[in-house]
Amino acid sequence: MSNQYLDPNLKVFSLNSNIELAEEIAKVIGVELGKCSVSQFSDGEIQINIEESIRGCDVYVIQSTSSPVNENIMELLIMIDALKRASAKTINIVMPYYGYARQDRKARAREPITAKLVANLLETAGATRVITLDLHAPQIQGFFDIPIDHLMGVPILADHFKSKELNGDVVVVSPDHGGVTRARKMAERLKAPIAIIDKRRPKPNVAEVMNIVGNIEGKIAILIDDIIDTAGTITLAANALVENGAQEVYACCTHPVLSGPAMERIENSKIKELVVTNSIALAEEKRIEKILQLSVAPLIGEAIIRVHEDQSVSTLFD
Amino acid sequence: MSNQYLDPNLKVFSLNSNIELAEEIAKVIGVELGKCSVSQFSDGEIQINIEESIRGCDVYVIQSTSSPVNENIMELLIMIDALKRASAKTINIVMPYYGYARQDRKARAREPITAKLVANLLETAGATRVITLDLHAPQIQGFFDIPIDHLMGVPILADHFKSKELNGDVVVVSPDHGGVTRARKMAERLKAPIAIIDKRRPKPNVAEVMNIVGNIEGKIAILIDDIIDTAGTITLAANALVENGAQEVYACCTHPVLSGPAMERIENSKIKELVVTNSIALAEEKRIEKILQLSVAPLIGEAIIRVHEDQSVSTLFD
Amino acid sequence: MSNQYLDPNLKVFSLNSNIELAEEIAKVIGVELGKCSVSQFSDGEIQINIEESIRGCDVYVIQSTSSPVNENIMELLIMIDALKRASAKTINIVMPYYGYARQDRKARAREPITAKLVANLLETAGATRVITLDLHAPQIQGFFDIPIDHLMGVPILADHFKSKELNGDVVVVSPDHGGVTRARKMAERLKAPIAIIDKRRPKPNVAEVMNIVGNIEGKIAILIDDIIDTAGTITLAANALVENGAQEVYACCTHPVLSGPAMERIENSKIKELVVTNSIALAEEKRIEKILQLSVAPLIGEAIIRVHEDQSVSTLFD
Amino acid sequence: MSNQYLDPNLKVFSLNSNIELAEEIAKVIGVELGKCSVSQFSDGEIQINIEESIRGCDVYVIQSTSSPVNENIMELLIMIDALKRASAKTINIVMPYYGYARQDRKARAREPITAKLVANLLETAGATRVITLDLHAPQIQGFFDIPIDHLMGVPILADHFKSKELNGDVVVVSPDHGGVTRARKMAERLKAPIAIIDKRRPKPNVAEVMNIVGNIEGKIAILIDDIIDTAGTITLAANALVENGAQEVYACCTHPVLSGPAMERIENSKIKELVVTNSIALAEEKRIEKILQLSVAPLIGEAIIRVHEDQSVSTLFD
Amino acid sequence: MSNQYLDPNLKVFSLNSNIELAEEIAKVIGVELGKCSVSQFSDGEIQINIEESIRGCDVYVIQSTSSPVNENIMELLIMIDALKRASAKTINIVMPYYGYARQDRKARAREPITAKLVANLLETAGATRVITLDLHAPQIQGFFDIPIDHLMGVPILADHFKSKELNGDVVVVSPDHGGVTRARKMAERLKAPIAIIDKRRPKPNVAEVMNIVGNIEGKIAILIDDIIDTAGTITLAANALVENGAQEVYACCTHPVLSGPAMERIENSKIKELVVTNSIALAEEKRIEKILQLSVAPLIGEAIIRVHEDQSVSTLFD
Amino acid sequence: MSNQYLDPNLKVFSLNSNIELAEEIAKVIGVELGKCSVSQFSDGEIQINIEESIRGCDVYVIQSTSSPVNENIMELLIMIDALKRASAKTINIVMPYYGYARQDRKARAREPITAKLVANLLETAGATRVITLDLHAPQIQGFFDIPIDHLMGVPILADHFKSKELNGDVVVVSPDHGGVTRARKMAERLKAPIAIIDKRRPKPNVAEVMNIVGNIEGKIAILIDDIIDTAGTITLAANALVENGAQEVYACCTHPVLSGPAMERIENSKIKELVVTNSIALAEEKRIEKILQLSVAPLIGEAIIRVHEDQSVSTLFD
Repeated sequence: MSNQYLDPNLKVFSLNSNIELAEEIAKVIGVELGKCSVSQFSDGEIQINIEESIRGCDVYVIQSTSSPVNENIMELLIMIDALKRASAKTINIVMPYYGYARQDRKARAREPITAKLVANLLETAGATRVITLDLHAPQIQGFFDIPIDHLMGVPILADHFKSKELNGDVVVVSPDHGGVTRARKMAERLKAPIAIIDKRRPKPNVAEVMNIVGNIEGKIAILIDDIIDTAGTITLAANALVENGAQEVYACCTHPVLSGPAMERIENSKIKELVVTNSIALAEEKRIEKILQLSVAPLIGEAIIRVHEDQSVSTLFD
Repeated sequence: MSNQYLDPNLKVFSLNSNIELAEEIAKVIGVELGKCSVSQFSDGEIQINIEESIRGCDVYVIQSTSSPVNENIMELLIMIDALKRASAKTINIVMPYYGYARQDRKARAREPITAKLVANLLETAGATRVITLDLHAPQIQGFFDIPIDHLMGVPILADHFKSKELNGDVVVVSPDHGGVTRARKMAERLKAPIAIIDKRRPKPNVAEVMNIVGNIEGKIAILIDDIIDTAGTITLAANALVENGAQEVYACCTHPVLSGPAMERIENSKIKELVVTNSIALAEEKRIEKILQLSVAPLIGEAIIRVHEDQSVSTLFD
Repeated sequence: MSNQYLDPNLKVFSLNSNIELAEEIAKVIGVELGKCSVSQFSDGEIQINIEESIRGCDVYVIQSTSSPVNENIMELLIMIDALKRASAKTINIVMPYYGYARQDRKARAREPITAKLVANLLETAGATRVITLDLHAPQIQGFFDIPIDHLMGVPILADHFKSKELNGDVVVVSPDHGGVTRARKMAERLKAPIAIIDKRRPKPNVAEVMNIVGNIEGKIAILIDDIIDTAGTITLAANALVENGAQEVYACCTHPVLSGPAMERIENSKIKELVVTNSIALAEEKRIEKILQLSVAPLIGEAIIRVHEDQSVSTLFD
Repeated sequence: MSNQYLDPNLKVFSLNSNIELAEEIAKVIGVELGKCSVSQFSDGEIQINIEESIRGCDVYVIQSTSSPVNENIMELLIMIDALKRASAKTINIVMPYYGYARQDRKARAREPITAKLVANLLETAGATRVITLDLHAPQIQGFFDIPIDHLMGVPILADHFKSKELNGDVVVVSPDHGGVTRARKMAERLKAPIAIIDKRRPKPNVAEVMNIVGNIEGKIAILIDDIIDTAGTITLAANALVENGAQEVYACCTHPVLSGPAMERIENSKIKELVVTNSIALAEEKRIEKILQLSVAPLIGEAIIRVHEDQSVSTLFD
Repeated sequence: MSNQYLDPNLKVFSLNSNIELAEEIAKVIGVELGKCSVSQFSDGEIQINIEESIRGCDVYVIQSTSSPVNENIMELLIMIDALKRASAKTINIVMPYYGYARQDRKARAREPITAKLVANLLETAGATRVITLDLHAPQIQGFFDIPIDHLMGVPILADHFKSKELNGDVVVVSPDHGGVTRARKMAERLKAPIAIIDKRRPKPNVAEVMNIVGNIEGKIAILIDDIIDTAGTITLAANALVENGAQEVYACCTHPVLSGPAMERIENSKIKELVVTNSIALAEEKRIEKILQLSVAPLIGEAIIRVHEDQSVSTLFD
Repeated sequence: MSNQYLDPNLKVFSLNSNIELAEEIAKVIGVELGKCSVSQFSDGEIQINIEESIRGCDVYVIQSTSSPVNENIMELLIMIDALKRASAKTINIVMPYYGYARQDRKARAREPITAKLVANLLETAGATRVITLDLHAPQIQGFFDIPIDHLMGVPILADHFKSKELNGDVVVVSPDHGGVTRARKMAERLKAPIAIIDKRRPKPNVAEVMNIVGNIEGKIAILIDDIIDTAGTITLAANALVENGAQEVYACCTHPVLSGPAMERIENSKIKELVVTNSIALAEEKRIEKILQLSVAPLIGEAIIRVHEDQSVSTLFD
């Protein structure tokens, strides 16, 4: 390794959700991934063997709690327990994707707030810091009482579109009411106006219509969301934009969950290109031409170095 | 009192921020407010005397943490401590307005998350439940690990406009990007479309413009926000709407903070009527003709009864 | 239902691991199972809808944390969070099988103690009591600071063998060193001697032998364990017993995990009958003739009633 | 700055209650005060901006919780929250004056113990150490579970009187029953006897009299208290001493709260000189000739250095 | 039993420190003491058997943590653990004497604050309420975050002296500087003046003298303290009073620790009668004629009934 | 001292239970024992004076909680409290013998789990790590949430027997059902078979018999247990072994509690030699020829050095 990191007390471990990203991050920092095996017994119980001493070390554990989300959360909690009992000095959880983030409030009676539950579980297990990326709601930072470093993926997406030199007027479009602030931030970086897809039912017993608030005619529309899951909203939005006169439609998000019918919908949609990050590993069958995956490893690697060396992380985004 | 509540173990106490509302709530329930004096020593330290035994009682303490917010929070925390040490069975905090709710995330480096801090302080002091209204962000529910009953004030505001029988097409307008979901909910109740004020700076060193996304021409615009504080955003929005052809402009919010230049701005604005609730008490000089204050006492009183009798609170909003 | 339970504040909910047992328990108590749906979104996140008010109720949640263990634990934790936020009075976790119980100590360097972690997670989520059955190690009771009612399944297994009127001298056999106390308890109920399978390697680089400590020749051997997982130990033990002159071999355990090669091994072994309880639901393909499943529903149902009515649970085992 | 402190990880921040003292302390240590702004929004909510990175630093926050006490406590709690989330290594609270210290027990039914509440709030917010001065009751140390360094201001006051070379026999007088131990300590340093003001009502419906227990005739009396608030007790005591034959009367205290009628009473009293420390900042109008303010900055500065360098603090008082 | 208490959910258990008092209290309430045996194994470990179900009960455990203090504290903690795990509804600790109360602050460097430690241990074990009597410092109430009912024994002592109809002028004397407030309270009840024993060393290397501050000549002196331990201070005080002209000297305290040379000193002193309570059991050899023991059982029994029935306890002292 | 340890931040303190061992450990490490006095006031309250500054130090406190167990636990808790308040950096508890370890589960209704209670008390007081030896049940590790280093004494015992070159076939015997795994581990080190003493009652109302499971005839039997307390089980076992044909009988254990009739039983038994460690100090009268005490000081000293230097402790046992 050319740029070997000097302090042996910085240890990076990867669990099973996104090993490729973890390896990239380790390379950025200049360390080898810590030796451990994380497997399952035949009855499905997780077995963790940490194969090197980590006494007194600052340990960074990389794990997106993407699908299989419950396995990945339990892997993480058990790893934290093992590190705590093995006398790690600090246990820093790196979650490029924070699963259950959309269950962040009681929207209906008797719902759980699972995003808070997960925060409590991590603290109870023994985590001393969380590093994460583009939380579904920034308020989730407040679910923790330990320090949390919240990184931004939107600049990576924006830079991509800026470097594309798109030929025409750009409009940034929020696919729903909750994402307008996010669209506005992207629009600022692209010096563009915004529009909103206002899905609503005009009268009872009449089909929902994709009303477009704002002017998109003849423009290059860039849809932005934080998470694309089943891709229903984003693909309907894309098609509505084209039907209403948009010149062409791009889409982007930080976290490509892409579950259920997502791939089929994207393939069949009017989206020209979908730009995502590698916060969630894409299975082989999801690595299609229409999807471009940008790496967050340089960002996360740099953040880990800064945390370890007590330098400001916020200046990464100045 | 005609409708006296029968269970003597339900006690309602009011602190100093909104005694008028507390009295109304007590009347709705059918109880007298509990006897206590909450005053200050000459050096400003708060002195609390609870003047009746509350051993084994379910106590409801009514306190909006509006201005003077720090006094009001400390009053509340000290009252909770006194109730806990005096052997209250449960300590239910009724906060029609939750101060510091806008400090709900780290927007910039090294910011506190004061809304979470306040939640932690309340739990540490000994609160066992929180009843509140239209939180600035619904995620603040997750800042608590005790049960929280989150009431909705928007239906009260919507009912007012429905009963007005406005003469013309209505459009509900969000004064900024973050409030679109709230506007959409109000619009659904009024069966109206939405628009958004998209305040942005077209080029560097050029003044911000109030761009309007959506169609408002010739319509009756209803601006909605959860909190109106200095009233800058809402009054600029109102004026922009009129300038862009709106027929007339109403505004509404749940929490009338109305600090600093707010009153002057409202008086001088194009807002025809500002509809608010009494979650925050209005000082005499703020009780002007242009402002209509609707009471949340029936809502909160009913919620307290339901909590006390272990009935569903969510059905209040079905 | 003939024997309807009168107090409507006792609510029993079942999660997904063992619905059949939960229904049986509900019937024993005389209640309907509480209405809730526990499903997964297409990305695998668990979605819980509790469909009736449980304010002020004593809720009993039935969930064995058997395979898929991580899903089942997360279901349980999320359910507890939902119940806590929905103002349940007490949240009583009924875990007929306590997954991860074998990870109850650090056997090697840097191992987690997952059984303790799970206890901490349950308490953090908000559980107020645990009811469980034949813990792998009784010390796991001490992992909790909330009350735990530890039920015994061994009497059910013993009663079965007593009622069989086995024709010959019985010897109870522990399949390994750690289970001798359990074997002794069963032997006491059957008034029988014990033997131990002493698996060991006589010299380095020589195969392990199944040495039998104690006299089993010509006897009816009853192997007992708490958990049968891959069934390697128990089937090798059974075969060794037959080879060393046992007349016939029965086996029994409380918790039939039966993962991986277990079914094939059991089918091919010298075990005449394997007696288990329904603490873990058996998949259709595991319901073979050689396996007899006894119900713990009457035991658990009675325990729930006693807990609810503040009667002694220990007298169940006098 | 001549004596610059070398370790850049020691950071001293001042909040708003006593900036002058904080600047003096910083000078004693040899550091610049940390850059931060602590202001209020127009609705009174506190806004804190920490304007330099403090990751991994040992931070000392200087704040007397004197009047406005509730503002000052909230400022402190919010600052702690911000520092914790910004990854400070340790958060050391320097409270030269600990507000609410007199509410340290339940003197009557249903009173709060606000001094304990404040301790709990500080720990919950994230404080890791408290440095304070002459607590009203030394037992308040036990309200904390974090280390607390309790400094003594009485030696500073005693040294002043020793250096004065008073011309006559000195008697140290406690103005009430609770302060006799404090008076005895001062008396020891001055090698003087003590007396006590025994305020009591001789018969029901008869005015209270200031009975003097001990011999003060012809002597120079030095009244000592920890806090002088409204100055009623101390000025009545002074006058009673003169009336009963004291030659002249001095008074001293560590914490000059001086609220309400205090200044007028002092001006009009028989007290010749009132000696106080600068644990509480005196407003301009309170800086009268009769009051001499001694600085505790050298003491506190030295204590901070010793805490930071893991040297004994107790030896400061040997 | 004539006055049997009706609610079977009130259970009173006695540990080993003061069984006689516990029996008296049980009689006052109208219950039998709960059945349990608290003994020691031969290696000194405490063994507790609670011999009746206490599920769902409000349990009151009576234990003074007098000598052997460490045994008595551990008995209490282990009992609380057993009650918690056995599903008691509430665990109310009745400590007529609170051991280690004098270690309530750091008087010197590196001292523990054992009185706070004990409070933390009780809460950790699971206590939900403490009922105690005449704490050495009232601030110890603030060491707890659970409710604490602080009873007063001084009125019992005062009533005794009032009923005595002493023939002469009474003066109440505090034997040291810290007890003046206590003496003043007693004096108020007896409508008497106070005096203080001011033990001090006039010059270095000169013996300490018992200076008397206040007028005691020809009077009947009543010395009062909260605890009499080795009786050095009180007997020296008594003798000094007589030498200085007191007519006769009585002494009283709530807690008769009476360790080491106490009995000999009392016998040989000028104290005419020492009045104490039975908060601490007196061994046979300490039950001498000079010592009168008054019972606190009626007071504590009444307090338990009031706590159990959610009536005000403070009104006991009106 | 020849091998002086260089880092002055490592401090070792001994409390009163096993000063001899502590001195040996200190010598192994190369430090002087920290200066402190731990004594009792005449009423039995423990008084601790730490006589040197330990600010910022890693402190190791050596205390077996052997008899007098309650005194020793309280000494330890109070010491931890003092160290915490005196600003120790880490507080590492070295408990060669962990008292109350046998109360590690509820064996009967309403029993405490005192071993867990003790773990909770240690954590509450402020311990940050525990180093201990041969816990009665390894699950007790899970009673802690702080790191625990669990050392093994069995290799020391095994090495002794290996070095003895016993003349004959060895069999390792477990004196009861619960200790078979321990016997198996010792047997592995000695390459020997095992046997078990199966104490049971053949029929009701018939005396218990010491049945021996396994072949011991003509062999040298080595009985092994973790704790020998009253020595009833081990001496009955030894005698039964001899009666059943064992050539000679040795016994060994890690923790020689030896209470009550233990010494007499051992003297009178067929045990040829009893090998123990010095985890518990033996009183002079217990230092008889038949008992050989091996030192664990080299093991514990080495473990402390490794903990202090962040080296692996587990490799001590490879």
